[in-house]
Amino acid sequence: MIDVKDIVFPAAWSEDEKTRAKTEFLKRLALLTHEFYGGKMQTFPKCGVSLELLNMWYTPGVSKISTTIRDNNDASFSLSNRGNLVAIVSDSTRVLGDGDCTSSGGLGVMEGKALLMKYLGGVDAVALCIDSRGEDGSHNPQKIIDFVKMVSPSFGAINLEDISQPNCFRVLDELREDCSIPVWHDDAQGTACVILAGLLNALKLAEKSLTDAKIVLLGAGAANAAVARFILADGGDPSNMTLFDVNGALHVDRADIERDERYYQQWDLCRKTNPKKVNSIEKALQNADVLIALSAPGPGIVQPEWVRSMAKRAIVFACANPAPEIWPHTAKKAGAFIVATGRGDFPNQLNNSLCFPGLLKGALLACSRKITDSMAIRCGHSIADFSEKQGVSPNKIIADMSETALFSEEAGDVAAAAVAEGLARVNISREEARRRAEADIATVRSTLRHLEEAGDIPPLPDELIQRALKEVGGEFNSEGARSF
Amino acid sequence: MIDVKDIVFPAAWSEDEKTRAKTEFLKRLALLTHEFYGGKMQTFPKCGVSLELLNMWYTPGVSKISTTIRDNNDASFSLSNRGNLVAIVSDSTRVLGDGDCTSSGGLGVMEGKALLMKYLGGVDAVALCIDSRGEDGSHNPQKIIDFVKMVSPSFGAINLEDISQPNCFRVLDELREDCSIPVWHDDAQGTACVILAGLLNALKLAEKSLTDAKIVLLGAGAANAAVARFILADGGDPSNMTLFDVNGALHVDRADIERDERYYQQWDLCRKTNPKKVNSIEKALQNADVLIALSAPGPGIVQPEWVRSMAKRAIVFACANPAPEIWPHTAKKAGAFIVATGRGDFPNQLNNSLCFPGLLKGALLACSRKITDSMAIRCGHSIADFSEKQGVSPNKIIADMSETALFSEEAGDVAAAAVAEGLARVNISREEARRRAEADIATVRSTLRHLEEAGDIPPLPDELIQRALKEVGGEFNSEGARSF
Repeated sequence: MIDVKDIVFPAAWSEDEKTRAKTEFLKRLALLTHEFYGGKMQTFPKCGVSLELLNMWYTPGVSKISTTIRDNNDASFSLSNRGNLVAIVSDSTRVLGDGDCTSSGGLGVMEGKALLMKYLGGVDAVALCIDSRGEDGSHNPQKIIDFVKMVSPSFGAINLEDISQPNCFRVLDELREDCSIPVWHDDAQGTACVILAGLLNALKLAEKSLTDAKIVLLGAGAANAAVARFILADGGDPSNMTLFDVNGALHVDRADIERDERYYQQWDLCRKTNPKKVNSIEKALQNADVLIALSAPGPGIVQPEWVRSMAKRAIVFACANPAPEIWPHTAKKAGAFIVATGRGDFPNQLNNSLCFPGLLKGALLACSRKITDSMAIRCGHSIADFSEKQGVSPNKIIADMSETALFSEEAGDVAAAAVAEGLARVNISREEARRRAEADIATVRSTLRHLEEAGDIPPLPDELIQRALKEVGGEFNSEGARSF
Repeated sequence: MIDVKDIVFPAAWSEDEKTRAKTEFLKRLALLTHEFYGGKMQTFPKCGVSLELLNMWYTPGVSKISTTIRDNNDASFSLSNRGNLVAIVSDSTRVLGDGDCTSSGGLGVMEGKALLMKYLGGVDAVALCIDSRGEDGSHNPQKIIDFVKMVSPSFGAINLEDISQPNCFRVLDELREDCSIPVWHDDAQGTACVILAGLLNALKLAEKSLTDAKIVLLGAGAANAAVARFILADGGDPSNMTLFDVNGALHVDRADIERDERYYQQWDLCRKTNPKKVNSIEKALQNADVLIALSAPGPGIVQPEWVRSMAKRAIVFACANPAPEIWPHTAKKAGAFIVATGRGDFPNQLNNSLCFPGLLKGALLACSRKITDSMAIRCGHSIADFSEKQGVSPNKIIADMSETALFSEEAGDVAAAAVAEGLARVNISREEARRRAEADIATVRSTLRHLEEAGDIPPLPDELIQRALKEVGGEFNSEGARSF
């Protein structure tokens, strides 16, 4: 296991230098390991194969599959891998923190996402990083929409990812409307689902209610726009909510947003929230119960005095990557009761990976036609409830990825929600969906173990880890060095 | 193993009834097994995975993969699974013998093709069955072209499949020209490659030469147009060649073909072949050395008297599916020296599966920019040479799928051809490509065995086989019944 706790850097280095060196180590190791394995994902039969059986898996037997699906499209979900298969579609114009990486440049991330879907949720997924440029060379949302509509007959769901704003809004909304399979935008709905889950538990711990909480959102992009929508749909009071983008507070006087129809979601929030047209972040945060920042990498974006002016038992979610808008210890010192970030090396990681594998598994098990906001909100409650059952505290408001049962619980709840909303093609019970998700995830883990044991998946060579670590000036402090 | 030899039908049934019942058995079993497994293919990690490693496979380490590929697109072939990944693209408008099956209707076949690629060639593949209908509801070749161009940054090669004529011609030719990865049309080039291989060995056995052979092609669709092109490029004499389509012989007076620019390949053959404008199939076949029929399901399409009029040691390839244009025993009785078909239950099966897994593996190992006709012809010779070394005879002109080494030999030859033609992105030797293909194919077989042994891939239930067999009125004649 690569345990950064075992990495030692020169004692003279500052904490900041060490943190940066750790990240650089992971990057260099990524380069070596991706080259060693030739990427991360493969395709593989899930059925018994022999030359004789090919007469059934292929011609002439397979003809019956073609004609059966031709006569009843819904059969495609059970007779092909479509029923468990997600297309991860990106035009790679906003790849994590690295901006436009060219179409192929998104492959590392999207293939990684496919790996997470399989490993955490038992969901098959394929990375489709596409060229969305039109004839004029600019990225064209209509091309993405046309592409997804064309390819949707082969998949059980579409996961849109890392598409730059404002193209992503229209692409998602139009596809959600027009496709007969779920179209999920993880950067928006996924983030909002996990933040809602964390918020629900944080409010419980702070003995506050969503209805009464005064909530400030810093950043009004795809993610925070969805966070606001989910909070309002789940009982939040719009008159208690204020959003800020780079040009100031959102309210009905924001003509720049009203003018630009690509930002219709933001305009909707201008009309609903901040009726007093509070204009400054300092003022909005006075006595606020909750700050949810999804803005620009920090630290230094959120000031300690802002936090100090918040209400008692203040909740601060500083979710920018790679560095949060304010360091957790700074926010705590300024009086925050609960602090959460997007990072795994601080308490309370709010990570999309807690949501999408289980949520998509549930939607697939129900052969759902859509994933509605209310299904995603249901999933947020599922995460919150599961986490609460495992025991929550101000430094542990939410489960982490190691809690495998979380994902099958989500799948059960989401499948049941799809059935309840009349969107499911199959009538599956919550327990049946939970059980099938659990079994599928267990099979992935056991398959992986068997392949590693048999050497079919070769172990990660020690020398790659040593080389990457040496390149950044560090070393392992124990003789064992690692224990994969 | 499903061995049709072990299937017993009522003694009163005719051979024809039994044959049809066997096919029906495979179809019914396909329905039951596809449902049991939920399709045939899955995605799976090919690297070690643990929660700690996710920091490298995903954020923050993976960022280095995005930026490295952004700065050097060629790195995408080695740093992602792109280097071993083929998109099988079809609009399902001509799915095997079943015609237009609607977009999702092609999934069973394309997923089967993905299974063959992995099992035989160690190549990863994804089925993309797309909706090619334009606003007027008709299938639009431009939409397929745009789709493939958009998705090509995620794949190492494109396999076009089961696209109806004449759309398939333009789609292939335009994409081959414009894409920087190979675009392969298995129905045309793949078929032509295998037929060329069979023809080369059949001619050797008949002690005839390609240059002097008088060749008649029945059918002038995508497949036979490519067969003609390959034969001519490999030394065949166009003045010795005659093609027939449903409207008669191809020659320069065929104004109907000249008029319709979608049939420009056929028009090219009109201008090159049949200079004497022979108009009847009977006349063309008099003294012909070779008949290659890729026309309509038989029997009864090719008449015994036609074969009788051919030259001594005549070669007859009757490749229509499911039934050849003439039964092999009928052709033999009429004097044919060598008869080949597309079916596995007769000697000399000419099957695309002998070509595409190894050919695509070789193109991928070289990171080739294209698959030229000359590379496919090289592959045809590779198959012929390999088969000859294993020993050929009139009833065994070509290797079969069980001869695993065939595919790595092809991969070596094709990779070397890509390097020689200046199309390879990496300078790989024939032997290195052969060795890597061999190792990858061996890993697939061992992985499959380990997963079946561990129960991660469940065995095909006996009762499904029994049920399918019972439905068509047959039974197994042995107690063992089967031995998967």
